[in-house]
Amino acid sequence: MSRVVILMGSKSDEEKISPCTEILQDLGISFVMTVSSAHRTPERTRALVRGQEVAGAGVFICAAGMAAHLAGAVAALTTRPVIGIPVSRGVLAGMDALFSTVQMPPGFPVATVALDKAGAYNAAWLAAQILALADPDLDNRITAARKRMRLDVEKAGEEISRKYSM
Amino acid sequence: MSRVVILMGSKSDEEKISPCTEILQDLGISFVMTVSSAHRTPERTRALVRGQEVAGAGVFICAAGMAAHLAGAVAALTTRPVIGIPVSRGVLAGMDALFSTVQMPPGFPVATVALDKAGAYNAAWLAAQILALADPDLDNRITAARKRMRLDVEKAGEEISRKYSM
Amino acid sequence: MSRVVILMGSKSDEEKISPCTEILQDLGISFVMTVSSAHRTPERTRALVRGQEVAGAGVFICAAGMAAHLAGAVAALTTRPVIGIPVSRGVLAGMDALFSTVQMPPGFPVATVALDKAGAYNAAWLAAQILALADPDLDNRITAARKRMRLDVEKAGEEISRKYSM
Amino acid sequence: MSRVVILMGSKSDEEKISPCTEILQDLGISFVMTVSSAHRTPERTRALVRGQEVAGAGVFICAAGMAAHLAGAVAALTTRPVIGIPVSRGVLAGMDALFSTVQMPPGFPVATVALDKAGAYNAAWLAAQILALADPDLDNRITAARKRMRLDVEKAGEEISRKYSM
Amino acid sequence: MSRVVILMGSKSDEEKISPCTEILQDLGISFVMTVSSAHRTPERTRALVRGQEVAGAGVFICAAGMAAHLAGAVAALTTRPVIGIPVSRGVLAGMDALFSTVQMPPGFPVATVALDKAGAYNAAWLAAQILALADPDLDNRITAARKRMRLDVEKAGEEISRKYSM
Amino acid sequence: MSRVVILMGSKSDEEKISPCTEILQDLGISFVMTVSSAHRTPERTRALVRGQEVAGAGVFICAAGMAAHLAGAVAALTTRPVIGIPVSRGVLAGMDALFSTVQMPPGFPVATVALDKAGAYNAAWLAAQILALADPDLDNRITAARKRMRLDVEKAGEEISRKYSM
Amino acid sequence: MSRVVILMGSKSDEEKISPCTEILQDLGISFVMTVSSAHRTPERTRALVRGQEVAGAGVFICAAGMAAHLAGAVAALTTRPVIGIPVSRGVLAGMDALFSTVQMPPGFPVATVALDKAGAYNAAWLAAQILALADPDLDNRITAARKRMRLDVEKAGEEISRKYSM
Amino acid sequence: MSRVVILMGSKSDEEKISPCTEILQDLGISFVMTVSSAHRTPERTRALVRGQEVAGAGVFICAAGMAAHLAGAVAALTTRPVIGIPVSRGVLAGMDALFSTVQMPPGFPVATVALDKAGAYNAAWLAAQILALADPDLDNRITAARKRMRLDVEKAGEEISRKYSM
Repeated sequence: MSRVVILMGSKSDEEKISPCTEILQDLGISFVMTVSSAHRTPERTRALVRGQEVAGAGVFICAAGMAAHLAGAVAALTTRPVIGIPVSRGVLAGMDALFSTVQMPPGFPVATVALDKAGAYNAAWLAAQILALADPDLDNRITAARKRMRLDVEKAGEEISRKYSM
Repeated sequence: MSRVVILMGSKSDEEKISPCTEILQDLGISFVMTVSSAHRTPERTRALVRGQEVAGAGVFICAAGMAAHLAGAVAALTTRPVIGIPVSRGVLAGMDALFSTVQMPPGFPVATVALDKAGAYNAAWLAAQILALADPDLDNRITAARKRMRLDVEKAGEEISRKYSM
Repeated sequence: MSRVVILMGSKSDEEKISPCTEILQDLGISFVMTVSSAHRTPERTRALVRGQEVAGAGVFICAAGMAAHLAGAVAALTTRPVIGIPVSRGVLAGMDALFSTVQMPPGFPVATVALDKAGAYNAAWLAAQILALADPDLDNRITAARKRMRLDVEKAGEEISRKYSM
Repeated sequence: MSRVVILMGSKSDEEKISPCTEILQDLGISFVMTVSSAHRTPERTRALVRGQEVAGAGVFICAAGMAAHLAGAVAALTTRPVIGIPVSRGVLAGMDALFSTVQMPPGFPVATVALDKAGAYNAAWLAAQILALADPDLDNRITAARKRMRLDVEKAGEEISRKYSM
Repeated sequence: MSRVVILMGSKSDEEKISPCTEILQDLGISFVMTVSSAHRTPERTRALVRGQEVAGAGVFICAAGMAAHLAGAVAALTTRPVIGIPVSRGVLAGMDALFSTVQMPPGFPVATVALDKAGAYNAAWLAAQILALADPDLDNRITAARKRMRLDVEKAGEEISRKYSM
Repeated sequence: MSRVVILMGSKSDEEKISPCTEILQDLGISFVMTVSSAHRTPERTRALVRGQEVAGAGVFICAAGMAAHLAGAVAALTTRPVIGIPVSRGVLAGMDALFSTVQMPPGFPVATVALDKAGAYNAAWLAAQILALADPDLDNRITAARKRMRLDVEKAGEEISRKYSM
Repeated sequence: MSRVVILMGSKSDEEKISPCTEILQDLGISFVMTVSSAHRTPERTRALVRGQEVAGAGVFICAAGMAAHLAGAVAALTTRPVIGIPVSRGVLAGMDALFSTVQMPPGFPVATVALDKAGAYNAAWLAAQILALADPDLDNRITAARKRMRLDVEKAGEEISRKYSM
Repeated sequence: MSRVVILMGSKSDEEKISPCTEILQDLGISFVMTVSSAHRTPERTRALVRGQEVAGAGVFICAAGMAAHLAGAVAALTTRPVIGIPVSRGVLAGMDALFSTVQMPPGFPVATVALDKAGAYNAAWLAAQILALADPDLDNRITAARKRMRLDVEKAGEEISRKYSM
């Protein structure tokens, strides 16, 4: 059983989206990642979502670019929380994907995070925070990871303040 | 049998989209218009599109706002030409619907026309031009209508030039 | 104990955000709603978030306009999922609030939903879907509500198709 | 006789637009592609469109950048369906070409597809779907091509899911 | 003979564009204003431009909204300076018309001024400044008008500074 | 002597900019407000700025719309801090004024604040904070005013939480 | 005496703006090009404009980026036509310069052309068309140049149509 | 004691922000620069701001990208003037950071300067101008630096005018 299911609309998004799996792995959250398209494989998308929901998946993460319908299509198929990562592709700088992902009609929310890699990271963190509601150990691991981020900033702060002074 | 099928994602778009039917009526093109949602009624949308395709529909017109997935969802279900009308709703001024409609991935085009009422009119005209490829009488009616538009401009031009002169 | 805590950055957002509470009420989810500002009352915001987390709150919903920092400030204070509603205020049409809310740095995600009222509704639905992971009864109520939405669309579809035909 | 006529506003768009011809070739649709400008060669554009219409062309595809008037100028000259590909050139990222192409006034629609290469592909697919209305064999070839796209996604999905697992 | 020819793409722009004529009248510049459309009446547009050029017109002013091709179409027909006024219509706030007007390809410039009424005024002023190159009297009238604007600002400044003080 | 000089580019901005004077008055900061234009009265602007600088003015506040050059023009004339308020006018929603104000070249900064009324308030607050560097009493008055804002939020929070509960 | 005066706000724009001089040279129009800044050298700008106006300059061309005030500052100093070239610099893609240049207040128009190099070319063409009003020989050279552009398009069209055929 | 405190939200902004320190050094203004994050290290940010305020800092400069909350968070902690530099990161071209920085609510202004490096320079210049209000020597150094900028422009102007002439 995978607690998180990651769908990307196109294999070409692999590099931008794979950082999502690193966070999940670090936090010890089982996941499956695959490719499925809202338009090219609507049946496959439906079967995947329905099957994974029955199998016990808790959160769906969907990454897509351009007219990014994947997260919305998944949101129509399940009552599990759906997280959307807008992927920038082509010249519109991801505004197309951002609007297509975040502006869902009432009743079918997509929890939209930042564009591209920052979004891939935050989709994992958000999925973890959702699952941690019923998993205090996971919540502790998130808290510990945040502490490490804090220490990283403090260390960087010391380096910068040593380097620039007057 | 309806030659054109018009789907709107929400009854609230009725006022903006109904001008589409006036043009079709004037041109003598049979149509059916109804409401169906990509997210709230995906099954209904699928059944409608499949049923109308079998019944002989030639063109689908889809109007939706916000994360406007309806036209794309229909494009995934049929090889008939799909025309998309982006509808402005809320503060993003239809940019969300425009991007969600026009930026379709390769293989599943949506023929996007202008936003709101201008798009409703042009969706009808485009559907007519597509159907006229195999219907010379309809082509003549389109040509006649264009002539009337031309005369309207000429008349307006005369009025304006009489009113402002020096 | 409130399962959902709703913070709005300014009392002037009451009309846009209160629809959020209707959905929570209909779904039988306990909540508390209040006003707190990231900039005018940072201490109050911190005390509220820390206190509600200890008291057992599961999800935070934050609504703010302009340089909408509230959701991000709350996300820095808790590991509970934080949902952000960008509120349009003034002439920038909510783009300021949308960007300020969705573009969070890695580690501190804000689950961003649509702008204004549509976002208020979807924040409630998303909170419900998150809480339903550990509450099958709530999941059933969400499913039932979606069914009612589906029936509303079907009914609207019938009305429209009766009204427009040729 | 060419069933599809492709006009590009500038030879510099050749690389972005030529993928259009690959799809047409694969689908067995005859075409001619040339350069003509709305502003630099209005007479040539008029002669080409009128000539090709008489010769039996069914669909016009027009690609242009910046103040992209070419598709609109062609739409004013023929009642055949006109498909517009907005081409990004310079710093405005194609928004200039998108707006200049899609926002046509009532009566003279341009069927606008995605920007740049994605648009070149989809212009071909859309032209094919339009011509397939009266050509069941072509419709079958489109359906077969869609099946191959579906299989590609499924194969990519398997690769990705094998590579990332936990 | 009219020294300035004003074309608007649609009679509905009359209110926004007519201020242009007030300035021309005040400056004693002969003009003619009429309606002609790049798409609905391309022949009329061509005939008007060619006829007025022969008759001695010095400057063309073109106002249009949406995919505003009129100024560009006129620029392709004459070597007289062409001034473009982008008109806002519908939800895109004139960005469509601005991009369609200003982003002309090399060789066929359109002198673009501000949107809507401010543009109508400035189109007249720009036309006057162009014609004044060979008309010192007109140049004097422009200078006198600028002096009146200066006095208006000074008077307003006095009022405001009297009203607000501390 | 006025410690703050407020220039607005046009009397029509009076309603949006006058809130600036209320804050200054409440904080006991002397000011003068008048109208001057970068383009219509460049000499007046220069004389005002030079004169007020000599007279001891500490901060300049400039409000302008459209191609808002006023703050930049003043910044070129003085080494006193210049605060810019972008004013929205017409359809571009103040983006024109925002960009024209904030994107100053190195050496001639304009301290840009929010658009319209929010900017008018914040220009006053920022001017006060700048002057308070050398005026501890003023600093205390700012701190006291912030406390009142905090209490207002707390009171609003109590009202809202009483009204909505479950 | 120079008939055209070209001012660029920064030497760094040389590469983008110098194409302007090629066109002027080809058309036999005398010009002078130099650097002057609205903010760093307002006195120099004033002296240059006043001096060149007296010396007989007919048209001013101003190129600037970011908060591009140069063209507007020049427009306030002369009644000669001022052409503005918005230069893209930094991440805002020239939208800052475009808005700062085109949105001038009534009475002080800037004839805005396309961004960057396309604008540099068109500024020269527009200046030429303005000067040609009183110079039939120049008008003939413009017409001849347009003919060469037309032939270039026709030649490119032949190449493309030979290369792609089916 | 440092008169200026520079905070950057992430060490990755070092290259874009360090030019700020060169200006301060040239002008003889003491400063400290370090890294602190609104979200990852809110406590550190609070301690730094409070500590530096007590130690006598006069101006805070905050640089951040994406949902750039740092400057606003600092503005909520001190009554010293806060200057914000929006940093472009990712595909949204800094519009996210610009809106998140400039659109602060009444009472908590952030003096926003240009994006990226231009902003880093101008933050330093603005800080200097603020501190110069009570430091005539510093004011003289700013005036001298502006004179050098003026001479640089004049020299560049001579080079360009020698190079291009006809």
